[in-house]
Amino acid sequence: MIPILRFSAEDFAARFARIEQRAEAMPAGVEATVRDILRAVRERGDAAVCDYTRQFDRLDLTADGLEVRAAEIDAAVARVTAEDLAALQLAADRIAAYHRRQKQETWLSTDEDDILLGQLVRPLDRVGIYVPGGKAAYPSSVLMNAIPARVAGVKEIIMVVPMPGGEVNPHVLAAARLAGVQRIFRIGGAQAVAALAYGTATVPKVDKITGPGNIYVATAKKQLFGLVDIDMIAGPSEILIVNDGSGNPRHLAADLLSQAEHDELASAVLVTTCAAMATQVQAEVARQLNELPRQAIARSAIEQFGAIIVAADLPQALDFCNRIATEHLELAVAEPFALLPQVRHAGAIFMGHHTPEALGDYLAGPNHTLPTGGTARFFSPLSLDDFVKKSSLICCSAAGLKRLGPQTVRIAGLEGLDAHGRSVQLRLDDLNA
Amino acid sequence: MIPILRFSAEDFAARFARIEQRAEAMPAGVEATVRDILRAVRERGDAAVCDYTRQFDRLDLTADGLEVRAAEIDAAVARVTAEDLAALQLAADRIAAYHRRQKQETWLSTDEDDILLGQLVRPLDRVGIYVPGGKAAYPSSVLMNAIPARVAGVKEIIMVVPMPGGEVNPHVLAAARLAGVQRIFRIGGAQAVAALAYGTATVPKVDKITGPGNIYVATAKKQLFGLVDIDMIAGPSEILIVNDGSGNPRHLAADLLSQAEHDELASAVLVTTCAAMATQVQAEVARQLNELPRQAIARSAIEQFGAIIVAADLPQALDFCNRIATEHLELAVAEPFALLPQVRHAGAIFMGHHTPEALGDYLAGPNHTLPTGGTARFFSPLSLDDFVKKSSLICCSAAGLKRLGPQTVRIAGLEGLDAHGRSVQLRLDDLNA
Repeated sequence: MIPILRFSAEDFAARFARIEQRAEAMPAGVEATVRDILRAVRERGDAAVCDYTRQFDRLDLTADGLEVRAAEIDAAVARVTAEDLAALQLAADRIAAYHRRQKQETWLSTDEDDILLGQLVRPLDRVGIYVPGGKAAYPSSVLMNAIPARVAGVKEIIMVVPMPGGEVNPHVLAAARLAGVQRIFRIGGAQAVAALAYGTATVPKVDKITGPGNIYVATAKKQLFGLVDIDMIAGPSEILIVNDGSGNPRHLAADLLSQAEHDELASAVLVTTCAAMATQVQAEVARQLNELPRQAIARSAIEQFGAIIVAADLPQALDFCNRIATEHLELAVAEPFALLPQVRHAGAIFMGHHTPEALGDYLAGPNHTLPTGGTARFFSPLSLDDFVKKSSLICCSAAGLKRLGPQTVRIAGLEGLDAHGRSVQLRLDDLNA
Repeated sequence: MIPILRFSAEDFAARFARIEQRAEAMPAGVEATVRDILRAVRERGDAAVCDYTRQFDRLDLTADGLEVRAAEIDAAVARVTAEDLAALQLAADRIAAYHRRQKQETWLSTDEDDILLGQLVRPLDRVGIYVPGGKAAYPSSVLMNAIPARVAGVKEIIMVVPMPGGEVNPHVLAAARLAGVQRIFRIGGAQAVAALAYGTATVPKVDKITGPGNIYVATAKKQLFGLVDIDMIAGPSEILIVNDGSGNPRHLAADLLSQAEHDELASAVLVTTCAAMATQVQAEVARQLNELPRQAIARSAIEQFGAIIVAADLPQALDFCNRIATEHLELAVAEPFALLPQVRHAGAIFMGHHTPEALGDYLAGPNHTLPTGGTARFFSPLSLDDFVKKSSLICCSAAGLKRLGPQTVRIAGLEGLDAHGRSVQLRLDDLNA
């Protein structure tokens, strides 16, 4: 049963803290294990990658078997129905269209002191996309990571996807082809992340690694951050629905469950100003749960980290929402645009009663890689920004240097950096000579 | 003596690898020490911060002495000369003007499927700026970190600056006031980073921490990444100058030295196509070194991590430059704009003979916090982007849901996420009923 809570309840803070702090504590030994795997791949390259793949994925490969060949991709794609391919293509097109809007342009301009300043925006050369393998291999993850990279202009997109026991997910390979992935390697875990970060004889070294993964993958990414760039540090997924009593309780219950089926650590919370809606949704969740194939997972998530909260009014609901800074926020209210200006933090916002979160997971267009666990206060959805880098540009004329040089020398003096000042003063002396 | 090298020399690769790998290896114990400090501050708050401040900064404070009072700032600012204040103000104005150009706007637009999509861009609520203390406290660091935050619209900028033995740097406090810093705490090290990340009774919890620091500060930031956002992982500073034989060897030597005086790990490299220029700059570096107050530091950096390389031609020089992906790149050539399109990676690019790097350190306008150690391949200069976060927005109409719903259900099916599909199908059924 999904519990109904009230903000005014004495144990509310404690109960909700349990939901907020649900992220798996790092199991003992993970950091050290990952450190060992990274060192082994750095030192022994492909040989270490093959060893770990044999050990963890039950796949006996040599280095020249690591890459998935074009013929294998062709064969996999041929197994995908035309209807499924069309759906993936629609998603790919819509994701590309949305991310094209995020393009930032290079600019150069001359200011009033006769100094040309600018900012160059250029794509990364090569990125690695991590895609989890086995049953939970999601083609949507491939699209959501690779398409922004392609739209940004990244020349080479390398995908790694473990294939435990040799299992190939044809939709994942089809999505990779649609998204413009250039090369695919059948490796996973910390060893795949290490191969991308250090490069091996077979796996090219990349500039950035994005994509979801288990605790070993996440820990490897964090340990390698700085040697390569990574996307955000993601925790378990979550939804918060704000409701004003309008709408259909069956729909709200279904949205909570769509989040809950992800995994046992998922959190699904409804805040409503309507006590009747709260009890109706509670009953609907119980009823719909019984019909779900992933019932065991969803039930565990709903019972442990689900809640329906009855708020006194919408301002109270929105205060809560801003405190939580949720990954997915549904404004399931009659007038969502009236509420929007009061929402300060959320990864993605789903407006009104016709926008179920699942639409955003697949094909509305915005990225489904979103900040979790309150990090929407400072992290952003994965975007084109993740696949470009900037360089600043300064071009000073002799006249400009005469104008700004003396003040530069002065500040260098304040900081006791004499050689900084002299590099300017020497030029000023020569210009004035 | 700064060595003259040739790409063709047998030991070139080995010699240059030493320069590229000059970043301090993490001294044993730093990670564990930092972990202990973070835990102590998380558990004991201000009391732990005061203990460490007494221990590391020789300052005996209670919690109510941690914040620098307005009267102290007034007194410090009063000690700054009008000329120095004017120079800092000029720098502040130019930095603000450049960063205003980086502003990204919120957008909303309706697409051909009748779905409203958008991206909200909003400032972070509260950020922390770390400023190193003591003799190496640089007012320019304050400006370069705080001004982009202010321009982005961050409501509260908190600065931490250690004051070892009570020493106050009036220029740092004056810069903080010019830049719009709201509150200043006289704390530093990992304990200051922890206080900002966790919050204490006295120090407010922030969303992001930026600014340079020693190995303890950098390690604390990396360990706390995810709980708060941080700026990049920075290594020792560096300059690469590309020269075609044009220009003045005295100026080029001065530019190399301005980098070398930062610290013993700084790297200063000139790549020139002109052998005569190479020997002239070598002689000039030797001569000018003798005149520098920070001679010991600069000499060590130049001898260990400095080099003049004679290239066969400009393409060879630029290949090298792209391989290095340097922090500061001077195109000290007659026609810098002709070369620019071939530069793929660099933190900041200084064009032509009238643009010494020192100009960019202080008041050209672009940020002086730049990616080091080859990370310009994927990191960008500190910018307005660092002080905003984005939320995506999706608003689907009934008509839009009818159009996109069936394909959403199909992809959910491919992924085995039945509840995702049902949240859409239920609505479709009701719309079609």
